[in-house]
Amino acid sequence: MGLIVQKYGGTSVGSIERIQAVAQKVKATQEQGHQVVVVVSAMSGETNRLIALAHEIETSPAPREMDVLLSTGEQVTIALLCMALHKIGADARSYTGAQVQILTDNAHSKARIRGIDGIRVRGDLQAGHVVVIAGFQGVDDQGNITTLGRGGSDTTAVAMAAALNAQECQIFTDVDGVYTTDPRVEPKARKLDRITFEEMLEMASLGSKVLQIRAVEFAGKYNVPLRVLSSFEEGEGTLITFEDEGMEDAKISGIAFNRDEAKLTVLGVPDEPGVAYSILGPVSNANIEVDMIIQNIAEDDTTDFTFTVHRNDYPQALEILKETSGILGAREVLGNENIVKLSLVGVGMRSHSGIASTMFEALAKEGINILMISTSEIKISVVIDEKYLELGVRALHEAFDLAGNLPAEM
Amino acid sequence: MGLIVQKYGGTSVGSIERIQAVAQKVKATQEQGHQVVVVVSAMSGETNRLIALAHEIETSPAPREMDVLLSTGEQVTIALLCMALHKIGADARSYTGAQVQILTDNAHSKARIRGIDGIRVRGDLQAGHVVVIAGFQGVDDQGNITTLGRGGSDTTAVAMAAALNAQECQIFTDVDGVYTTDPRVEPKARKLDRITFEEMLEMASLGSKVLQIRAVEFAGKYNVPLRVLSSFEEGEGTLITFEDEGMEDAKISGIAFNRDEAKLTVLGVPDEPGVAYSILGPVSNANIEVDMIIQNIAEDDTTDFTFTVHRNDYPQALEILKETSGILGAREVLGNENIVKLSLVGVGMRSHSGIASTMFEALAKEGINILMISTSEIKISVVIDEKYLELGVRALHEAFDLAGNLPAEM
Repeated sequence: MGLIVQKYGGTSVGSIERIQAVAQKVKATQEQGHQVVVVVSAMSGETNRLIALAHEIETSPAPREMDVLLSTGEQVTIALLCMALHKIGADARSYTGAQVQILTDNAHSKARIRGIDGIRVRGDLQAGHVVVIAGFQGVDDQGNITTLGRGGSDTTAVAMAAALNAQECQIFTDVDGVYTTDPRVEPKARKLDRITFEEMLEMASLGSKVLQIRAVEFAGKYNVPLRVLSSFEEGEGTLITFEDEGMEDAKISGIAFNRDEAKLTVLGVPDEPGVAYSILGPVSNANIEVDMIIQNIAEDDTTDFTFTVHRNDYPQALEILKETSGILGAREVLGNENIVKLSLVGVGMRSHSGIASTMFEALAKEGINILMISTSEIKISVVIDEKYLELGVRALHEAFDLAGNLPAEM
Repeated sequence: MGLIVQKYGGTSVGSIERIQAVAQKVKATQEQGHQVVVVVSAMSGETNRLIALAHEIETSPAPREMDVLLSTGEQVTIALLCMALHKIGADARSYTGAQVQILTDNAHSKARIRGIDGIRVRGDLQAGHVVVIAGFQGVDDQGNITTLGRGGSDTTAVAMAAALNAQECQIFTDVDGVYTTDPRVEPKARKLDRITFEEMLEMASLGSKVLQIRAVEFAGKYNVPLRVLSSFEEGEGTLITFEDEGMEDAKISGIAFNRDEAKLTVLGVPDEPGVAYSILGPVSNANIEVDMIIQNIAEDDTTDFTFTVHRNDYPQALEILKETSGILGAREVLGNENIVKLSLVGVGMRSHSGIASTMFEALAKEGINILMISTSEIKISVVIDEKYLELGVRALHEAFDLAGNLPAEM
């Protein structure tokens, strides 16, 4: 019976009918005895329509004016949702980012939230109103309209939940929760009831695009319990929370993968201080982001250096690397676009040994060759040939018994 | 070389191409050495699109939320116009009504402006920026978004001009100025170079819908010189100004007419105190607005009472009147829908006699019977059979030599 913040994305408010359905969900939550704050995105298609208008004038419009333009999208939704709530007998009041004082820095189009003044919202909630807030937008200390960047409505919702000390922040989306892996690859994939913030961050950054990474970080930082659930189906969704809150005893939460990477290797580089910088400096100067980096132990006086980049950047990175390797006197440059990164994610890794070897064994049994390995505290990533993606995901899903209701025994 | 406020309506900013044309006009004004503040409406069609969305949910949505919804229309335009100005090398900054602090009362959908904080705008102008302001909208002292009602962008422009002490407020529209009468009725109608505020008010309220009446009143009250000119053609338009500023010596400025009225008469009402109220009270209680009212001098102990209403209200007014006349013991009730009101407007009437008789003579010559007469300080209105509208307008236009460049001699 506490305060709930609910966020509905563009698809969930994509038509008048859907806005009316959202109003019903909101009212039902209120009738359960909760105070409800709703954060909404622009109706799906609206942001693209506005961008298209701007691009008819200028391909790179001034960010300040772009924010003025795009922020109208959510403003339309908040008004319509309030009308739909009124229609079914719920009191509701709308607020733009500026009105509710979502204070941000002045980095137009990618502003960061500095603070929220919750006084007015609290007053409305106490008066029994549903408070409907425009996501994605804020205001700087000069009164200029800012936006948080695409998907920023998740961040707005989490920030509101933090500012109001909400019981839970519910992100309604078009999936019904977070899965052990992509159900399109492994039909046995299971919806998780709970996942930790750290795991969610690893899953999100690896391509399970259920939530915006920034929103998850924000929620973790401010201890806001976050729940992902479906706008279109009933269900409890997945709660993203803290380890100490009675987590499942699972070691592994899921398997994420990323098909968008390519691998580059320089063989036989002199093993000297500064060699990593000599190789990656020019790549970074070309604004190419590097993901995994591996340097093998030197044998003679040379070493092998491998890294991955986004597949779109591969041709340019290869070009740069060939030039660099000439200067460094490297033996050879190799590249491979046909790879995928497969990652096992789980906080259980911290306290359980043997997970890496189980993983490698499972892949070996299927004859899958591992091209690169990289580990973090709660993640083991391997790069494999892309043709083995589905096979690899299913093998790991099976090996760690992710489809079952019980955690894998090891 | 002063400060000019320019207002462009929905048709003038109805497409990206037109917004770009407006940007050119604004830049040209700035290049003449002026500081320029631009007030814009929503792109034509946009307000209706938003209203239709709201009406899908609710036929009478909450005014507060309707204002949140509709105010997005101008917000889109200000951003796009700034982009178009940037594109052609003009510095420009946009402001919503709330940002520029157009403070209003809280009468949503028909708010009245209380004050404007011009500090930020002045700073921008001094820095060489064009300032682009969303018309039609403001903010109340609680931070709620308000709108001034349809056409309110004219009022915004005049209020900005008053607050900034502008040299001139230019209203760009789809006509090139104010005419002596409707050119579709009298092809010899002449564009006026100047007209007084009072005359403009009479012309506007009689159906020459060039400008919002409120904007004209506002401009008169705050001594803001107002100019009506075309978005699409070159020209000086019509300056609406004060009598003492070297007005043309014309006695008559123009002929306005109104086809939307109907006439009702009660014959043989007892000539007693309170009879006017007995007749008009029930009409007014039915929310029917009454325009002209005439009561003839009583002969026996009875009097005849005539008034006009909007033609849409005629059937209901007739119904009410029949009931009232029964109660009052009146002799007969008559009604006529086939009438028009023709008005001669001019500040010259104040100091020149004989205008009424010239008017009546001109109509008589054409065999036009006058059904009602009503006069004010700068206006003479007559009601005639609607079939004589064109003939009457042309006869008066000729009689007062309105087509010529010289005022009529009398």
